[in-house]
Amino acid sequence: MLRFLSAGESHGPKISIILEGLPAGIPLHEQDINDQLARRQKGYGRGGRMKIEKDRAVITAGVRSGETTGSPLAVEITNIDERKQQKNGADFTKNEHKITCPRPGHGDLAGSLKYERKDITDISERASARETAARVACGAVILKMLSGLEVNVLGQVLSIGGIEAKKTINSFDEAKKVLESSPLRCADLEAAEKMMAAIDQAKEEGDTLGGVFSIEVFNLPPGLGSFVHWDRRLDGLLAQAVMSIPGVKGVEFGLGFSLSEKRGRQGHDAIYFDREQGFYRKTNYAGGVEAGMSNGEKLLMKAAFKPIPTLQKPLDSVKWDSREPACASVVRSDVCAVPSAAVIAESMSAFVIGQAFLDTFSRDSYPGLIKDVRQYRKQSRQGFDRE
Amino acid sequence: MLRFLSAGESHGPKISIILEGLPAGIPLHEQDINDQLARRQKGYGRGGRMKIEKDRAVITAGVRSGETTGSPLAVEITNIDERKQQKNGADFTKNEHKITCPRPGHGDLAGSLKYERKDITDISERASARETAARVACGAVILKMLSGLEVNVLGQVLSIGGIEAKKTINSFDEAKKVLESSPLRCADLEAAEKMMAAIDQAKEEGDTLGGVFSIEVFNLPPGLGSFVHWDRRLDGLLAQAVMSIPGVKGVEFGLGFSLSEKRGRQGHDAIYFDREQGFYRKTNYAGGVEAGMSNGEKLLMKAAFKPIPTLQKPLDSVKWDSREPACASVVRSDVCAVPSAAVIAESMSAFVIGQAFLDTFSRDSYPGLIKDVRQYRKQSRQGFDRE
Amino acid sequence: MLRFLSAGESHGPKISIILEGLPAGIPLHEQDINDQLARRQKGYGRGGRMKIEKDRAVITAGVRSGETTGSPLAVEITNIDERKQQKNGADFTKNEHKITCPRPGHGDLAGSLKYERKDITDISERASARETAARVACGAVILKMLSGLEVNVLGQVLSIGGIEAKKTINSFDEAKKVLESSPLRCADLEAAEKMMAAIDQAKEEGDTLGGVFSIEVFNLPPGLGSFVHWDRRLDGLLAQAVMSIPGVKGVEFGLGFSLSEKRGRQGHDAIYFDREQGFYRKTNYAGGVEAGMSNGEKLLMKAAFKPIPTLQKPLDSVKWDSREPACASVVRSDVCAVPSAAVIAESMSAFVIGQAFLDTFSRDSYPGLIKDVRQYRKQSRQGFDRE
Amino acid sequence: MLRFLSAGESHGPKISIILEGLPAGIPLHEQDINDQLARRQKGYGRGGRMKIEKDRAVITAGVRSGETTGSPLAVEITNIDERKQQKNGADFTKNEHKITCPRPGHGDLAGSLKYERKDITDISERASARETAARVACGAVILKMLSGLEVNVLGQVLSIGGIEAKKTINSFDEAKKVLESSPLRCADLEAAEKMMAAIDQAKEEGDTLGGVFSIEVFNLPPGLGSFVHWDRRLDGLLAQAVMSIPGVKGVEFGLGFSLSEKRGRQGHDAIYFDREQGFYRKTNYAGGVEAGMSNGEKLLMKAAFKPIPTLQKPLDSVKWDSREPACASVVRSDVCAVPSAAVIAESMSAFVIGQAFLDTFSRDSYPGLIKDVRQYRKQSRQGFDRE
Repeated sequence: MLRFLSAGESHGPKISIILEGLPAGIPLHEQDINDQLARRQKGYGRGGRMKIEKDRAVITAGVRSGETTGSPLAVEITNIDERKQQKNGADFTKNEHKITCPRPGHGDLAGSLKYERKDITDISERASARETAARVACGAVILKMLSGLEVNVLGQVLSIGGIEAKKTINSFDEAKKVLESSPLRCADLEAAEKMMAAIDQAKEEGDTLGGVFSIEVFNLPPGLGSFVHWDRRLDGLLAQAVMSIPGVKGVEFGLGFSLSEKRGRQGHDAIYFDREQGFYRKTNYAGGVEAGMSNGEKLLMKAAFKPIPTLQKPLDSVKWDSREPACASVVRSDVCAVPSAAVIAESMSAFVIGQAFLDTFSRDSYPGLIKDVRQYRKQSRQGFDRE
Repeated sequence: MLRFLSAGESHGPKISIILEGLPAGIPLHEQDINDQLARRQKGYGRGGRMKIEKDRAVITAGVRSGETTGSPLAVEITNIDERKQQKNGADFTKNEHKITCPRPGHGDLAGSLKYERKDITDISERASARETAARVACGAVILKMLSGLEVNVLGQVLSIGGIEAKKTINSFDEAKKVLESSPLRCADLEAAEKMMAAIDQAKEEGDTLGGVFSIEVFNLPPGLGSFVHWDRRLDGLLAQAVMSIPGVKGVEFGLGFSLSEKRGRQGHDAIYFDREQGFYRKTNYAGGVEAGMSNGEKLLMKAAFKPIPTLQKPLDSVKWDSREPACASVVRSDVCAVPSAAVIAESMSAFVIGQAFLDTFSRDSYPGLIKDVRQYRKQSRQGFDRE
Repeated sequence: MLRFLSAGESHGPKISIILEGLPAGIPLHEQDINDQLARRQKGYGRGGRMKIEKDRAVITAGVRSGETTGSPLAVEITNIDERKQQKNGADFTKNEHKITCPRPGHGDLAGSLKYERKDITDISERASARETAARVACGAVILKMLSGLEVNVLGQVLSIGGIEAKKTINSFDEAKKVLESSPLRCADLEAAEKMMAAIDQAKEEGDTLGGVFSIEVFNLPPGLGSFVHWDRRLDGLLAQAVMSIPGVKGVEFGLGFSLSEKRGRQGHDAIYFDREQGFYRKTNYAGGVEAGMSNGEKLLMKAAFKPIPTLQKPLDSVKWDSREPACASVVRSDVCAVPSAAVIAESMSAFVIGQAFLDTFSRDSYPGLIKDVRQYRKQSRQGFDRE
Repeated sequence: MLRFLSAGESHGPKISIILEGLPAGIPLHEQDINDQLARRQKGYGRGGRMKIEKDRAVITAGVRSGETTGSPLAVEITNIDERKQQKNGADFTKNEHKITCPRPGHGDLAGSLKYERKDITDISERASARETAARVACGAVILKMLSGLEVNVLGQVLSIGGIEAKKTINSFDEAKKVLESSPLRCADLEAAEKMMAAIDQAKEEGDTLGGVFSIEVFNLPPGLGSFVHWDRRLDGLLAQAVMSIPGVKGVEFGLGFSLSEKRGRQGHDAIYFDREQGFYRKTNYAGGVEAGMSNGEKLLMKAAFKPIPTLQKPLDSVKWDSREPACASVVRSDVCAVPSAAVIAESMSAFVIGQAFLDTFSRDSYPGLIKDVRQYRKQSRQGFDRE
């Protein structure tokens, strides 16, 4: 079992992550994590805040001489001074200035009722998207593990503010090159221009934008997940993991919602075989998952990301203490974070996929895991014969 | 913690369910379960199979004198003879006639590779939608528990084969009346006529249809779920539970995918207050979930259901043993099961919601739970004041 | 993850078990389970009740043609009529005759307070040791799985009523022969005679006896369990599983409590190596567990079992409704159940050990698991060399 | 659900703890944790190492203005320089000097085989008892929570090296006073003198001592834990938690092993009632647990702690690489750590007890939890009446 916990508030001293259940022997350096943290912080439409901070991970446990040891991995990301000073130099733990007006679209209201807190800061500091840095740090480690199993994960922006990319890239290596240099992680450069213009305009108007992104997982063997009990289904687990990203409001596999309009004969992926590839499909309507298991094709999910709810021209709200109408609190924020959401979703997907590998194969030693997976790939490519 | 396991194959002797973690004192009779099982079996487009069987639940443990005792609840649903005879009278456990040609859209191929089974029957018997009867039995119990907490769950068909309902019903009581008598669980009777015609046509052509349905949960208090760790988010948990239903390929909350096209100022639900209702919203774009918590508004999900993959005119496939091309096995099946899927999704949602209640409030005694929830509702309606 | 749930009351219609997470391909027949159920019911000192009933398991799911399929396994044990009639022919679910006087040593009092039940029967029917039949059914399946991994588990009675066996048997095969034909599962036949006399005397006096038994697990490879987090320690998991058996009040490994009196130099097992056996020890003070892991030596636990609290001459108690002093209810029961407890503990230990194997090695296919374990044994016998 | 993870190696930069699932509103300061960390480090027989370091906790998340917020709590304990220098000033992460000779009684051998590590340091750094500092930090928080629920936990040394205390103290307040000023956390000052002499002598001889301690939990309400499924039994969960402490080899409740020698009529606690105390017992043979639930009496466990396996005169071992006989590595260590083990066991018990409270009562807000528990105590003292 692979599990992690994270802690840390948006303007607190640091974000902490403990990740338990890794095999021993995964090559890992802080740079692996920092690379992913940087990818999360990039993207046209991120606020000024992003320019002043740059997350750096420090590994404090679980790695020796550049390899995981099997012991729990601890990572911390210190919030730099500039970030902390945004809170007006106030001691984070002091309660001097209570926030009492809940922002629509955030956890401010329900969270305060649930935990019975009078200062919304007690809620908003943890409900902040800052928490997703922990997920990306964690995901970076799993992505490293997956890469040795020849599995790659790719997030790609498909639309922003209703402007759709007409083009996506389907090879991991090519996509990697194009997307990493794109300011919006979008393969359609023309559409990206329009998206950036829309972001500029929204910014001027004190407004925000959402969008849609895809997650693709390349080279999964068949049989990860299972149909035997609902909570072992890979699609369910991935849906939970991606839906749990703040701002995500929809998740679909393959053709997803539009598959619901197809006839059965046009909606499933016929099965073929040749000596080289083994079993294969010519279509991928299912998005690589059948009956809650990977089916050997590319895994394809799409997710809808709502416009950021922190607005410079705030919505109506009500004061927590007086019950008088008031405008929601204004906090410095981004205009569009869809590219970041795609990076976070890579990490959450990697976590689920990594867990599925470790739930299926030998898990104490990474070299052993690699060997097991290779052997299983070979066997399942040609079909399994017991006699 | 509320947990359940189920067992049972499609043509085996019975489906068994054990549900553990219920409070003591919930009024419960077998009829409560049978009513839900019947709802699952109804719906225009279900095959002849559905006409010959009628599921009956027997409670064998966990209830005395019409109340749960706190001990694990056991329910079994015996597969009637007609069902078993469909398997040609063969002893279910005998291995005489191996199925070797995997059906696209099912778990046949990946499942056989994963579990190393030569006879696909070992996979298809459990991967069958028959397993969802167990989920509905389990959900029936939780729905009963929720009804005493004044929470209701409603599944409604929104489209079939691309034909959309133009009208939905938003009151639980009214919807209940209309939907239960509708052959497709659809509030737009005109659209329903067209849907039935489409089902008839698909049937003639040996084809199948999918669709979209909604799940609404009425009267949830705010604060179920939590933002503190990703795996406690209510939307993530619901997404997993609904995506885990065989055939579901997409899940969204509130405006979902179309929310991704909105501006921030048009995409969030402003907060208001009056003495009678307490905090309230005039819109529900979020579908009743903010920051992974119920926010006190009606919970609204939509799910996409793919066309049934068991086809009377089967797709291309490959023989498991010879690797020769062949047509996928033909099994008697339904043309459209979207209304059933909506009922199953009610149950899965109820399970997650019920778990969220028991994760939040006193849980050993049902009268105690009811009292706790009432008090919390009162407190959270008017806002919480510590001083 | 291997998990099971059970349901069923002592005088209800049946005991149900669902076991999920088994690899596919384990040879399994109902007789495997019945053999273990019979072992649980044997033993000098069991009441007349045991003579009239004989548990028979029926597998209703998860097995085809004598092999597990990977799908959840369902087992049921019907309570025979004689058992049900002991309840005076009353319909089990009817509430006619309330039991209101809690028995000391049982869950009657605390359970009624916890679940707010007025009729103690709601508690006592599930808190009954009848529930352990489910554990043994489940354990039987895991024992079968372990036997293919060349691992054996043995329970042995060490003392009854303070009378100690002077002799134990240390080879599994020999012990099996002797213990299975012993009426008390005790290797010291002379001591067993005295124990039986003590049981006879206690019976005459309306009293009961407890005792101590051991659990040995033969041929465990090193490295099951882990030191990295407390909840992964094999000794902790085994202690929980055995302590969870009704009546068990103490658990120890190896020398256990008497190890606390030893000096360090006399209290640990020095390490040796030869080409044939690989690493080995000459002593086993640790009972086969170091740092929460199996260390390759025989696992040895001991457990203390209290005298049965159901007494023919009952202890003082208080009436639940009137708060008046009264004698605890008298129910037909056994005088001594230590041999049965040893069988139940075999099953609970097997469950933990089985889970540890599946948490460590490939798990979908039993032939694959066997191969993995063999290879790991070979490697760990000679020491691991990465270069 | 209350859960925690910890990370950190014995000579690494720090120990990190994340504790998730706490109610909001528990008063908490770093000093609460530091007090417990200091208690863990005290005790006659701890090596020179303990003199040079003094653990200090820093809370980096989850607390604002002296109260928990409901968000995950992060605590870190930096390893001071002196500790790190013991490792010869070597960079902890460098692999220059491999340890290849496994120490008997430690996880060195099994751990290296399991995780396939050539340098035993990769194992011993995490398998070290240093990890228990994290457990105590975590326990300190739960102890604080429990104190507001009027529940207290007390560890007490009963024997060291076979020398038994003839006297224990049964009132929490009195015990606290005496034990906190005792160098061995032992209530029998005369016996303590002999224990210290024995420790001195063992030290001279390069040897070590173990012992026995008790854990008492005062003022538990009845009904924590449950009999309905084995993994919910409070005694099983406590046994796991205490057995998981490095060095613990036995755990018993109440009379424990000696209860196995008693007759039934002498081995159970008769039930009485008076208006003031409600239900009560005159004896406590059961140690406060019946049928896997607290029964309202004082919870009493005892645990056996083996002599420390790190010896100045090491035992026989075998070199990992050459398979040649060699003496086990010598590391600076303590002679006796029984008092520390008692403190760690308080923490682990508190964790289980705290979890049981949060599994039973309202959990989001601490004031709400306190109110619930008070009301339940009142109700269960006088007996529950539904009519």
